[in-house]
Amino acid sequence: MKAAILSVGTEILFGQIVNTNTVFLSRELNTLGIDVMYHYTAGDNSGRLSDMLKMAFRDCDLVITTGGLGPTEDDLTKETVCEVMGDTLEMHQESLDTLYAISKRRGYTLTENNFKQAMMPTKAVVFDNDAGTAPGFALSSDGKTAICMPGPPREMKRMWERRVKPYLLSLSDSVIYYRILRTFGIGESELETVLLPLIDAQTDPTLATYAKEGECSLRIASKRRTLEEAKVAVNAMAEKVAEIAGEYIYSFDDEDLHQVVGKKLIERNITISACESCTGGLLSERLVSVPGISKVFDRGLVTYTERAKMDELSVKRETLDAFTAESRETALEMVRGLKAKTGSRLCISVTGVAGPDAIGDKPAGLIYIAVSFDGREEVRVLNTGKTDREANRNVAVLHMFDLINKTIG
Amino acid sequence: MKAAILSVGTEILFGQIVNTNTVFLSRELNTLGIDVMYHYTAGDNSGRLSDMLKMAFRDCDLVITTGGLGPTEDDLTKETVCEVMGDTLEMHQESLDTLYAISKRRGYTLTENNFKQAMMPTKAVVFDNDAGTAPGFALSSDGKTAICMPGPPREMKRMWERRVKPYLLSLSDSVIYYRILRTFGIGESELETVLLPLIDAQTDPTLATYAKEGECSLRIASKRRTLEEAKVAVNAMAEKVAEIAGEYIYSFDDEDLHQVVGKKLIERNITISACESCTGGLLSERLVSVPGISKVFDRGLVTYTERAKMDELSVKRETLDAFTAESRETALEMVRGLKAKTGSRLCISVTGVAGPDAIGDKPAGLIYIAVSFDGREEVRVLNTGKTDREANRNVAVLHMFDLINKTIG
Repeated sequence: MKAAILSVGTEILFGQIVNTNTVFLSRELNTLGIDVMYHYTAGDNSGRLSDMLKMAFRDCDLVITTGGLGPTEDDLTKETVCEVMGDTLEMHQESLDTLYAISKRRGYTLTENNFKQAMMPTKAVVFDNDAGTAPGFALSSDGKTAICMPGPPREMKRMWERRVKPYLLSLSDSVIYYRILRTFGIGESELETVLLPLIDAQTDPTLATYAKEGECSLRIASKRRTLEEAKVAVNAMAEKVAEIAGEYIYSFDDEDLHQVVGKKLIERNITISACESCTGGLLSERLVSVPGISKVFDRGLVTYTERAKMDELSVKRETLDAFTAESRETALEMVRGLKAKTGSRLCISVTGVAGPDAIGDKPAGLIYIAVSFDGREEVRVLNTGKTDREANRNVAVLHMFDLINKTIG
Repeated sequence: MKAAILSVGTEILFGQIVNTNTVFLSRELNTLGIDVMYHYTAGDNSGRLSDMLKMAFRDCDLVITTGGLGPTEDDLTKETVCEVMGDTLEMHQESLDTLYAISKRRGYTLTENNFKQAMMPTKAVVFDNDAGTAPGFALSSDGKTAICMPGPPREMKRMWERRVKPYLLSLSDSVIYYRILRTFGIGESELETVLLPLIDAQTDPTLATYAKEGECSLRIASKRRTLEEAKVAVNAMAEKVAEIAGEYIYSFDDEDLHQVVGKKLIERNITISACESCTGGLLSERLVSVPGISKVFDRGLVTYTERAKMDELSVKRETLDAFTAESRETALEMVRGLKAKTGSRLCISVTGVAGPDAIGDKPAGLIYIAVSFDGREEVRVLNTGKTDREANRNVAVLHMFDLINKTIG
């Protein structure tokens, strides 16, 4: 099957936002064995969108659109798709009921233009939106299918997972199965190099590496007649990969590192507290995103000032004066103070230079992490070499979770 | 002038890389007052590229391509552009000399396919590449211009700055200026409704609303002969918008709410501490992203368990038993405990149900925020109506910053 992806949104043409929807959909479609022939982005302009839809359907079976389903006058995707596919819009009662329910729950009154969102093509398969107000749909005609989804990435992704992907799978006569392995501590080129014998020998399953900030994913995909066959092929390949690069793999099921670590803490009932300086609460924030973490996560302290480090964690004035707040010694005193205060079985601390500027002779990206677990202590020192504040904080938190993971074993 | 951006690259269609060239070029073209009508991305396929070029030239004066100028067989951009514009390729002596010089400097021998990079359309204005080997060019015919640049972002950006931008400036006679206003507390449809008189009367400046999670942006743009004229028009319109919807606007310059609030706290030297339950450190984390915040941000406490709330913030056992941890009363005791502990001039607390599940009779999305400032206290109660954990936490933190903003005035 051949597909084109059409994005609607003036803010993309202005270069205001990066079109992450297209990146996401391209990967997903490729994994389903659907070839993406081109991407196209236009503003809310019916004529251009119509031209492009017609052109896309000349050599594609499937066109996926995102955006332009909102309630305002310039949201024209539905009207244009109807015109090209030879259908008309009518009020979709179920979508309207949902809009009423949402407005009631959130306590606002529907305005005239809200109703527009509940209008759907008469022959459409409607996809409900459980993360926003605009429903999506699939509309087929003469062997061609248009699928329209909302533009906000969170809504689009939810709809894709829950409704669109199952719909597309039901159209195909072969099945794709894939697993995404997540690694930490190895770069993309190095991972590709060690796996080269497997990659070069590949026809099916296929292997592909993807770099993310500070980590790297590996996708193993197989397309077979039955799900069972595809699963067997993918799992056998995952075992081969684990033999070669097992030490770097922290998830065989595309889970984030903080989810993997959080679950482990819950399963083993290991209580945890954290104190953060340069990461500003990012570790706590990620921990809290793990369902059920309240069972083991006692507290997080963001001790940003020297005074807070002394008050909350009994860091000594002399230590700060002699070694500065961004030091191995301060990281250790922080974690010891936290341990004394909370009694949590695992305590972790972080302090360092987030950037963009150096602090004294300490460069941006120099970060100290200390962990205390069952009487053992360890300090990990990072030097990211980066000046980007956000990147440094993100990499620091990945290392904190990696250190917790390795510490509890 | 109207333009289209065409990217050539299979790796983009696979979703392996994000098309940052297009984002960069869109912004740059907009600042030059050139309207970007669409983006198009295809693989190295001559037929599709040719179709798209013809379609683009129907309604655009300018087409900019990136990629496909390399030395290999599947690099077909130049050939296709020549075919569409009615020109042919010939050896460009100056480019060839440069290639020889590069190969000599780097110590390798030119192969047959390297020469392909020095072939240029006979009528082209050639742009030399000082960051790589493939030159670019502009080719005009019948009032239409194609500009072809290499795909690697670093090479493309260098060529843009040094050669292409000056070339385009010499062709243009208008400039664009825009501002982005950010609002909180009003939905996109409602904002559009109140601004309808201004939007309907628009020719220039133009107004457009964009919804983001929990908030809404408004872009005001003007295209005039001089930057000065465009600025005057945009600023006058911004004032009219402020008269109608001023209470919702927190930034006239596209700043995030936490940046605006963080800067205000720093400017006025208002010390702040925060204690968070359901948001898990997200507020602290955003505060810390504001440069210079260490001057006023004392500490953040993530008191996730009841014990932590009692230990750190002196919340009473009886309060938790009588009203639960997710209550107005607990939020108030949290903020009072924080005030007593830190003495920060502004203290803020949050507790509630992030979701996805309800806690007892409290639904997901029911969140209590308490603020204490100069002896005044206030509690804001939210009911987002959402079960999405991440969305609820994000909306809660936006409300916390909004409450801080309104409290300090």
